[in-house]
Amino acid sequence: MSQPQQNRRILLASRPHGEPKAADFRLDIAAVPQPAAGQLLLRTRYLSLDPYMRGRMSDAPSYAPPVEIGQVMVGGTVSQVVASQHPQFNTGDWVLGHDGWQDYALSDGSGLRNLGADLEHPSRLLGVLGMPGFTAYMGLLDIGQPQPGETLVVAAASGAVGSVVGQIGRIKGCRVVGVAGGPEKCRYVVEELGFDACIDHLAADFAEQLAAACPQGIDVYYENVGGAVFDAVMPLLNARARIPVCGIIAHYNATGLPAGPDRLAMLEGLILRKRIRMQGFIIFDDYAAGYDDFLRQMGEWLEQGKIRFREDIVDGLENAPQAFIGLLQGKNFGKLVIRVADE
Amino acid sequence: MSQPQQNRRILLASRPHGEPKAADFRLDIAAVPQPAAGQLLLRTRYLSLDPYMRGRMSDAPSYAPPVEIGQVMVGGTVSQVVASQHPQFNTGDWVLGHDGWQDYALSDGSGLRNLGADLEHPSRLLGVLGMPGFTAYMGLLDIGQPQPGETLVVAAASGAVGSVVGQIGRIKGCRVVGVAGGPEKCRYVVEELGFDACIDHLAADFAEQLAAACPQGIDVYYENVGGAVFDAVMPLLNARARIPVCGIIAHYNATGLPAGPDRLAMLEGLILRKRIRMQGFIIFDDYAAGYDDFLRQMGEWLEQGKIRFREDIVDGLENAPQAFIGLLQGKNFGKLVIRVADE
Repeated sequence: MSQPQQNRRILLASRPHGEPKAADFRLDIAAVPQPAAGQLLLRTRYLSLDPYMRGRMSDAPSYAPPVEIGQVMVGGTVSQVVASQHPQFNTGDWVLGHDGWQDYALSDGSGLRNLGADLEHPSRLLGVLGMPGFTAYMGLLDIGQPQPGETLVVAAASGAVGSVVGQIGRIKGCRVVGVAGGPEKCRYVVEELGFDACIDHLAADFAEQLAAACPQGIDVYYENVGGAVFDAVMPLLNARARIPVCGIIAHYNATGLPAGPDRLAMLEGLILRKRIRMQGFIIFDDYAAGYDDFLRQMGEWLEQGKIRFREDIVDGLENAPQAFIGLLQGKNFGKLVIRVADE
Repeated sequence: MSQPQQNRRILLASRPHGEPKAADFRLDIAAVPQPAAGQLLLRTRYLSLDPYMRGRMSDAPSYAPPVEIGQVMVGGTVSQVVASQHPQFNTGDWVLGHDGWQDYALSDGSGLRNLGADLEHPSRLLGVLGMPGFTAYMGLLDIGQPQPGETLVVAAASGAVGSVVGQIGRIKGCRVVGVAGGPEKCRYVVEELGFDACIDHLAADFAEQLAAACPQGIDVYYENVGGAVFDAVMPLLNARARIPVCGIIAHYNATGLPAGPDRLAMLEGLILRKRIRMQGFIIFDDYAAGYDDFLRQMGEWLEQGKIRFREDIVDGLENAPQAFIGLLQGKNFGKLVIRVADE
């Protein structure tokens, strides 16, 4: 392993108004820091890009503090230890962390998970075995509580979270209907992932197609999207439907509230009349204690071939801003990961 | 007990547009029916008036079928058996049922609860020991899950449901803040019911007063109202807040959606960021099996003086329409009950 020379870091340059632009990011070159006693130096191998990051670019109130202007963009990472003055980490160990959009990071070990020296498929720890897979698993099972024979609708069905949600729904005996953007993603969702149906939200008659695919209504709607997809879902919800709210990507670039009429009370009335349970969650805040169980169960499903997944790997840290902008536009196909450095 | 002569019945004459008017109801005089084998004849003593009835006057989709034009208005009743050809009911027995806005009803016994020949305080079975009290109890405890030290905000705090919600919240160790209309109701809520505070939603600075009364935010909001009260609650909700949705009376007379902007996605975003659980329920559909437990627990609390309540009893079936119209305007003070006939 060659000696580190410089640390490329992608900083938040300005807070986006609407869609992020390339100029909202800035590539900065810094010296590689040296670990002091009790510290370790991490070389980023893979960086996860996820929709929640749009929220961190904004200073609107949220569940987590925003990235400050001039700070490194946040993000989940799989890294390797390149120098350690920490007793629990050795050079060469793989580490799951949250070290952001940069080549190198110093750490005192807190918040890191040591994955050992031998790790097959490290990028999976950012996808099907990481935050997105865990988000799919807990949101569906704990809030959605799918029962055999029920109809589960999954937004963003070809994405990192949705693809896992739907496959777990099939394992649990549900009729699973995905929603995705474009015929290629829909074909993948049905033919490769085994969903019962997948509806293209770009189709002019999307709402009618969704209704036709859910002849017995919707019992669980796994919300990743909001917007027109949720609009089409609402009239189809059955009594006692459950809605885990994982994300509303359709609104992340919004610069203000949409025009009226105001449907807030309509949604409250729907929740009341249909006795709907609608619940948000933040995966590691609400369910951290369940991660080991998830890893065991998901590892088993992967081995058995019951869960399939797709990664959209983009090479080069410098390409992260453009890839992230595309993610918010639905341009990725599968879990979006930046390969920051070859293993 | 004198022999029945005629059966006054209040029928739905027309579907209201906006606020119900007296002309939407019609008083009809029919012959008193005679019970056949297996039937019993019930004399209505008390009729419950509740906000949900506004929904039954409308043919908009809801959780229950509407009252048809020309049909007797639905409603919970406490009655006495005046003639019985049914082995499980004797003349003189008190009965809890759902026999609507009329003097007499025939029944085959299904859906009736026989309360026996001796019943003190029969009207309580329509209030603190009936549907409203049970609604308060299950919605707060099962969905709201109040924890000691948390802040509970209760809309319509002097009403049949809200008054019980808040007192149970106090028993469970919460800081309880009520919302009611006018200083007299607010005084009652604090001084008689023991809430920690009560805010008048008619005050110009209602939202500021509510915020000041909830210095640690809101952990449970028991929703009976919607509208401006929910608007003031939303910014105060803490992470992991729970919102049992019991009713949205502010919207029951609405003739269309309010003007924009559209805040539907704003509410979804709030549910997501704050990990809120928002859940509707229909008490006897969702929790019927728990009624006996509730009766036991609430009876104990009443005996111990831990729960107080207030009834707003109006004499005469013929006054039910006007009393109901007033209920939707917040004119009642306590559980609204019609005394249809003296005991």
